[in-house]
Amino acid sequence: MNLNYIKPHEWKIIEEGFHKEHVTASESIFSLGNGAMGQRANFEEYYSGESLQGSYIGGIYYPDKTRVGWWKNGYPEYFAKVLNAPNWIGIGVKINGKVLDLNKCEIIDFSRELDMRNGLLTRSFIASFPDGDMVKVHVKRFLSMALNEVGVIKYSITPINFDGNIEYEPYLDAGILNEDSNYDEFFWEILDKKTYDDEAYIMSKTLKTGFDVCTGMKTTFQLNDAAITLEKETHSEEKSITYQYTKSINTGDTFSIVKYGGYTQSMNHPVGELFYVSAQKLNEAASIGFDLLLEKQEKLWSRIWDTADIVINGDIKAQQAIRFNIFQLNQTYSGEDSRLNIGPKGFTGEKYGGSTYWDTEAYCIPFYMSTKDHNVARNLLIYRYNQLDKAIENAEKLGFKNGAALYPMVTMNGEECHNEWEITFEEIHRNGAMIYAIYNYVNYTGDVDYIASHGMEVMIAVARFWEQRANFSKDKDQFVILGVTGPNEYENNVNNNWYTNYLAKWCLEYAMENLELLKENYPQDYDRIIGKTNLEAEETIKWGEVARQMYFPYSEADGVYLQQDGFLDKELIPVAGLSKSERPINQKWSWDRILRSPYIKQADVLQGFYFFENHFDDKMIEKHFDFYEPLTVHESSLSPCVHSILASKIDRNEKAYEMYLRTSRLDLDDYNHEVHEGLHITSMAGTWLSIVQGFGGMRNFDNQLSFDPKIPKNWKSYSFKIKYREHTIKVFKNHESCKFYNESDTPVKIIVSGKEITIFNQDLVVV
Amino acid sequence: MNLNYIKPHEWKIIEEGFHKEHVTASESIFSLGNGAMGQRANFEEYYSGESLQGSYIGGIYYPDKTRVGWWKNGYPEYFAKVLNAPNWIGIGVKINGKVLDLNKCEIIDFSRELDMRNGLLTRSFIASFPDGDMVKVHVKRFLSMALNEVGVIKYSITPINFDGNIEYEPYLDAGILNEDSNYDEFFWEILDKKTYDDEAYIMSKTLKTGFDVCTGMKTTFQLNDAAITLEKETHSEEKSITYQYTKSINTGDTFSIVKYGGYTQSMNHPVGELFYVSAQKLNEAASIGFDLLLEKQEKLWSRIWDTADIVINGDIKAQQAIRFNIFQLNQTYSGEDSRLNIGPKGFTGEKYGGSTYWDTEAYCIPFYMSTKDHNVARNLLIYRYNQLDKAIENAEKLGFKNGAALYPMVTMNGEECHNEWEITFEEIHRNGAMIYAIYNYVNYTGDVDYIASHGMEVMIAVARFWEQRANFSKDKDQFVILGVTGPNEYENNVNNNWYTNYLAKWCLEYAMENLELLKENYPQDYDRIIGKTNLEAEETIKWGEVARQMYFPYSEADGVYLQQDGFLDKELIPVAGLSKSERPINQKWSWDRILRSPYIKQADVLQGFYFFENHFDDKMIEKHFDFYEPLTVHESSLSPCVHSILASKIDRNEKAYEMYLRTSRLDLDDYNHEVHEGLHITSMAGTWLSIVQGFGGMRNFDNQLSFDPKIPKNWKSYSFKIKYREHTIKVFKNHESCKFYNESDTPVKIIVSGKEITIFNQDLVVV
Repeated sequence: MNLNYIKPHEWKIIEEGFHKEHVTASESIFSLGNGAMGQRANFEEYYSGESLQGSYIGGIYYPDKTRVGWWKNGYPEYFAKVLNAPNWIGIGVKINGKVLDLNKCEIIDFSRELDMRNGLLTRSFIASFPDGDMVKVHVKRFLSMALNEVGVIKYSITPINFDGNIEYEPYLDAGILNEDSNYDEFFWEILDKKTYDDEAYIMSKTLKTGFDVCTGMKTTFQLNDAAITLEKETHSEEKSITYQYTKSINTGDTFSIVKYGGYTQSMNHPVGELFYVSAQKLNEAASIGFDLLLEKQEKLWSRIWDTADIVINGDIKAQQAIRFNIFQLNQTYSGEDSRLNIGPKGFTGEKYGGSTYWDTEAYCIPFYMSTKDHNVARNLLIYRYNQLDKAIENAEKLGFKNGAALYPMVTMNGEECHNEWEITFEEIHRNGAMIYAIYNYVNYTGDVDYIASHGMEVMIAVARFWEQRANFSKDKDQFVILGVTGPNEYENNVNNNWYTNYLAKWCLEYAMENLELLKENYPQDYDRIIGKTNLEAEETIKWGEVARQMYFPYSEADGVYLQQDGFLDKELIPVAGLSKSERPINQKWSWDRILRSPYIKQADVLQGFYFFENHFDDKMIEKHFDFYEPLTVHESSLSPCVHSILASKIDRNEKAYEMYLRTSRLDLDDYNHEVHEGLHITSMAGTWLSIVQGFGGMRNFDNQLSFDPKIPKNWKSYSFKIKYREHTIKVFKNHESCKFYNESDTPVKIIVSGKEITIFNQDLVVV
Repeated sequence: MNLNYIKPHEWKIIEEGFHKEHVTASESIFSLGNGAMGQRANFEEYYSGESLQGSYIGGIYYPDKTRVGWWKNGYPEYFAKVLNAPNWIGIGVKINGKVLDLNKCEIIDFSRELDMRNGLLTRSFIASFPDGDMVKVHVKRFLSMALNEVGVIKYSITPINFDGNIEYEPYLDAGILNEDSNYDEFFWEILDKKTYDDEAYIMSKTLKTGFDVCTGMKTTFQLNDAAITLEKETHSEEKSITYQYTKSINTGDTFSIVKYGGYTQSMNHPVGELFYVSAQKLNEAASIGFDLLLEKQEKLWSRIWDTADIVINGDIKAQQAIRFNIFQLNQTYSGEDSRLNIGPKGFTGEKYGGSTYWDTEAYCIPFYMSTKDHNVARNLLIYRYNQLDKAIENAEKLGFKNGAALYPMVTMNGEECHNEWEITFEEIHRNGAMIYAIYNYVNYTGDVDYIASHGMEVMIAVARFWEQRANFSKDKDQFVILGVTGPNEYENNVNNNWYTNYLAKWCLEYAMENLELLKENYPQDYDRIIGKTNLEAEETIKWGEVARQMYFPYSEADGVYLQQDGFLDKELIPVAGLSKSERPINQKWSWDRILRSPYIKQADVLQGFYFFENHFDDKMIEKHFDFYEPLTVHESSLSPCVHSILASKIDRNEKAYEMYLRTSRLDLDDYNHEVHEGLHITSMAGTWLSIVQGFGGMRNFDNQLSFDPKIPKNWKSYSFKIKYREHTIKVFKNHESCKFYNESDTPVKIIVSGKEITIFNQDLVVV
C-alpha cells in the first residue's frame, strides 16, 4: 500500500489532517535543507509518538566500527556514519502548565505545507486539551540560504476559549542519539556551554573525527506581532540548555516566539572563533528579522527556479513531483563547497553510511551541470580528484599496484565505508563512472583545461586499475573481467558483466586519447603528469591491448549483448509473469533465489546504452530494450529514469511515461514503503533527466547539443531551461510544436530531430 | 610460525616447560571429553594470564541473535551458539595466604601430559613465590566415561621449604561468560543453590532454550594419601558457591583435595530430579574413589582402542598424531545418543555456532562406522532423519515447495544457524552429503532395512529439492544448477559447480533406484512412504529427466570436468608459483582476489571423484588430480585427507604422505595458527581415512570390501582394524607383505589389489 496522502499542488507539498501513522513519513517529505545543513520535519514541541529525530550538518561524520557476521579480509574497519547533530529547533510548550503534545491532545484542522518557492515549512492546527482548553497553533520554519548557518522558527499560539499562561521553553540539546546503528552510543562530547541574555550556545565535538560544532539559539517574542521582552528562568543540564518564558495572555491574543538557531563548525571557521561567529550570525539574523529573512530566501529560491524549474501543464501531480525533486536536490547540495557531496538521503535521514556514491557521477552531475553554473559540476569532480590518493590506497589494500585507483563504493572522506564483499570489492564499475563524469562534463561545458589540470591523473589511475583487473583468458583468447557485481545488484560475483567490461574498455581508450590530446595541446601539463604518475610507454601499450581485445558476452540467436556470462542459462520469464504477491522480490524472496532468477534490479546493459547511446544504432537500442526491460523489476530507485529516457528515445511513449511517474513520485507516493527513513535524493536527478533527456531528448555527444522533443499524451505542455556552455536555452513543448528560446547574448547552434538550427541571441525558433 | 612444542610420544601428548604464550593453545590440545561433556584444559587454580575458559555440555545451546552488517532476506534470526557452561573444576589455592597464580610465581619443572590410554590429564610443577616459599604441585584430572556426568580432580601440594598453611577453595561458578560473540551477555539464569556437608549444587537454566542444568561438586581430602576431614567456611555469592578449607602442614607433607564435579541436565532427567541425580552420581563417584574410577576409565578406553587404534612403526610423530585424532574423536562423540552430533570444535572451543556440519556425513560417519558398532553411524543418520521436518521448513523459507528439504549448513536443533548468503543459501551440496551417508552406511553395513524405515523419506525430500533447484537451460538444452557455492568455498555463487551437479544427479537416481527396491522388497513400507510423502508418479518422471539431462562443465582440450562454468577463464598459475608471503591467501588477500584467482580451498571435483571413485577409471582420476591438485591451497582442514587418499590411489606416494602429515598434525603443530580457538575435530576423521582408505586402500563399493595397501617409505609398518558387517578385520602392512586377520567367527571375503580372497574365521592371510 502506497501512502499517497500528499495533496496535489503546483508549488506546495500539502498534508491535511493529523494522522499519527504518517508522522515519520512526513518528517522525511517535509525535510528542510540549505546545502550546509538540514533537518527532518520534526515537531518543535515535545511529541511522545513515533518519530525519527534528525538534524544533520554537511560534511560531519563519525567513523563507526564495522560490524559484520563473518569478517572478510579487506573490509574497512570503520564506516563513515551520517551523524545526527545537536537539536536547536526544540521549543517545549505548556498551556496553563499542561504539556502540548500532539500525541495526547485532540488535534483539529491540522495542516502542513512546504512551499517550494521559498523553502518555508508551515504547520497549523487547533489542539484541544482533555480539560477543554483549546489553542490555535501556527508554526513557520525555514533554513536560511542567505545565512546558511542559521535557521528560523516562528511559533505562535492563540488561546481560543480561555485566558491563561503560555509557557515557551526553547532549548538546545546536544545529548542526541542515532537510530541507524549503535543507537545507544553517544558520538558527541560536550565541551562548553554559554548562556547570555536570550542567547545560548553549546560547544561540542564529535568523538574520533574531532569536528567542533557550536550550536546556538537566540529568541525574541511578540504579542500580536509587536515585540515584547520577557524574563526567563535558565535550566542548564549536562548536555542541554533550556530557557523558560511564561506569559499570561487573553483569549484571542497571539503570543509568538521567534527562535533563531543553527550551527557553526570547524570545517568553516577556526575552532576558537566558533562561538563568536555563532553569536554574530544569530544576532545578524535577529536584526534582519523573520520576515525580511524570508523575503531574501524567496529571492534566492527564485534565482534557482529561474533556471532549474520545469513547468508541466495539464498534469498537476507530475508538476508537483518534478518540482519536489528539483527542490530537494537544491536543498541538499548548493555546489559551493567542493568538500561536500550529495548523500543518498541528503539531510532527510541517517540510513546508509557516507555521503558519496557513484549516483553523483552518473545521475547528479548532469542535473547540476545544466541548471547551475558549471563550477558546481566542476566542484563535484574536484571532490573525487582530491580523494585520488585515498582511492589509490584503497586499491593497494586489495592487491593492486603502481598507482592504480579504486574509488570507494561509499565514502565520506575518500575511504571505503561499505562492507558487503559482493559490493565493496566487486561493484567496481563505479570506477568507470568517475571517468564518464569527466567526459560528460568536458563534452558539455567545453572545459578541456580540466583534463590537463585534474582529470588526466584520475584517468591514468583508473586505467591502471582496469588493466590490472582484467586478465587474459586463454580459453577465450581475449581479456575478461571476472568476479564483479554490475549496477544490477541482483547478480553478484559474475564474470564479464557487459557494462563493466564496456566501461573498462572505454576508460582505457579515453585515457589514451586524452594523453595524446595533452601531449599535443598541453605539453607542460603532459610532462608534469607523466612525471608525477611515472607513466611508462609500455603501460599504455598494454592498455591498448586490453581495450582492443576485451571480451563481450553476446547472443547470436538474440542479437543482443548479454548482461554477463551464462545469462542465457536462466529461465527468462518476464516480470509480467510474476504474481504480485511475490513483489518486490527483495522483500519476498531469499537472496539466492533473486540471484539465480533473471530479474534485474536496474538493467546495466541499458545503463551502458544510455551512457554510450552514440555508439549504437536505434535498432540495437530497441533490441536491447525489448530484451531487458521485460526482465527489470526496478527495485533500485536509479532504474526507472534510464528506462524512461531510452523508452522516449525509441518512441515507447507509454512506457516512458509509466517510468517517469515511477521515478518522480517515488517518495511522495512512497512506492518502496521506506520514505519514513528519508528521501531518495540522488535518484531525483534521474527524474529531471527523464524529462530533459527523456521527453526533451537532449543529448550532448560529440560537442553538439541536440534535442528530439516528445510529450506525454496527457500533458498540455512542458518547458525547461538548461545552461549550456555560455548559453541559457529554454525549451517549450506542446502537442503542436516545440519552441527554443536562446536567452543569451550570442547565437547557439543546436540539432533538433536531426536538423541543425541556429538560434540567434535573445531569439526564438519554433519547430 | 607453527608452534610445534608438543613432545613426540607414542601414547601421550606432552608439554614441558611453562610458556605463557602456549597456555591458550595447550588449553585446546589437552582438552578432555567423554561424549556427554567436555572442557578445555583450563587450570583449576586462579590464573591471571591469557586464557580461554571453556566447559561444554553436549546438546546445550543458546539461540543467539544474528548480527550482520546488511540483512539479506531469508537469514535465520537466531543461530545456535555453543554455550560455555558453569565452571565446576575451579579450586582456588593459597599458600600461607598468597594466591597461587602461575602467571605471578616462578614456575620450575612444569610438565603437562595427556595419556591417551585413559584420558588422564596430569600437570606438575614447582611454584616459587617472591618471598621464597616453594611448593610442588601435582594435578590429575579426567572425565569419567563410566559415569559420564562426573569428572574428577586430584590436586596435591607439597611444601618444599616451609611449614605453613595450605588453603583450598573449591568452587562452582555459574556466572560464566562467552568469548565468541556478545561476550558481555549472560546466557544462564541461576535458579537455586544448595550446600550440604562437602557438597554444593547450583541449579541454572539457559535463557530462551530453557535447558536446566545442575552443576555439582563434592570434595574429600587426603594427607599423604590418607583420608582426612576438615572444617570449612562457606561463601555463597549470587552466582557461585565457594568452600574454604585450610590446613597447616609440614615441609614434605602432601596435602590433596579430590574434587568430584559435573553436570546433570534436563535432556537426560526430569527437571525435578536433577539435584537428586547429581548428588547420587557424585556420591557414587566418591565412594568408588579416584583410583578405582581411573581403572574403570582405562578399561573403557582400552575397549575403544582395541578396534580404533592404528599402530605405526618407525614414525613416532605420525603415531602420536593418528592416536591424538582417534582419541579426540572418541572424546567428542560416543555414539550412544542420537540427539548429539560432532561439533567442528567438539568440546574444545566455542567458535562456530551449532554442532552439526556436512563434515559428519562426509568424513565422520566412515570413521565411526568402521571403529564402533554400526548403531553409532546409524544414530548419526537418525539425527538427520529426526530433523527432516525442519529441513523441509528451511526449504520452504527459501521458496521450495511440496516437501522439498534443504538441510541446514550449520545446526544444533535442525534449524539453520549460519548467515553468509553465499554459504547459507548456496552451499547446497550439503544436501547431497545426507544421501551419500545413507548410501555409504547401507553399502558398508548391509542394513537395507534402514532405507525402508528412515532413509527413503530423506531421499524423497532431497530429490524434490534438486528437481526444483535445477532449471532447464534452453541455451544448453540441458538442466543446469545456477548460483551455488561448492565445497571449494573460494568460489561463490557459481553456475554448474561440477560436484554439486554430479551429486544432484546421483541423488535423483539413487532415490529412484531405492523406490524400486522398496516397491519390490518392502511393499508395506513403500505404501506407507508414498502415502506420507504424497509422492506422485509425475515427480519421479521429472527426476529422471533432470538426472538424465544434467549438464556438466567439461574441457575437451584438457579432458577434465571443470569445477564450474567459466573456470578456464582464470589464469591457471599453480600454487607453487605463489610467493610464500602471500599465503595463506585467506589471511593475505581480499575476498574478491581469492574469488577470481584459480586457487582452491578444497578441490571439490576431487571430492566428487573420491565419493564416486567407482564411476571413473584410473586415468580419469589421475588426469583430474594432476589438473586440480597444483591449484589447491588446502586452506580447509577437510582438504588434505581427500588428496592424500586419491594420491595413494594413483601411486603418488610422496604426495600422499605429505598430505597425511598435514592432516594428522594440523592441531598438534598448529598449521593454521588457530589452535588456541579449539581443535579441528571433524577433520580428524579425515586423518583416519587417509590411513585406512589412503595407504590401506580400503573401499566398500558394490557390497564388496577391498584393499590395496601401500606404505610410506619411512614407516616400518602399520596396522589398523575395522568392523565390517559382522566381522572384525585387522590389517597389518610392512614393506614386505600385508597380513589380514579375520578376528571373527565366520569367514569373510575381501578383495586385495583386485583379487578376491577368503579369510576363514580366526584366520590370517598373508599377501
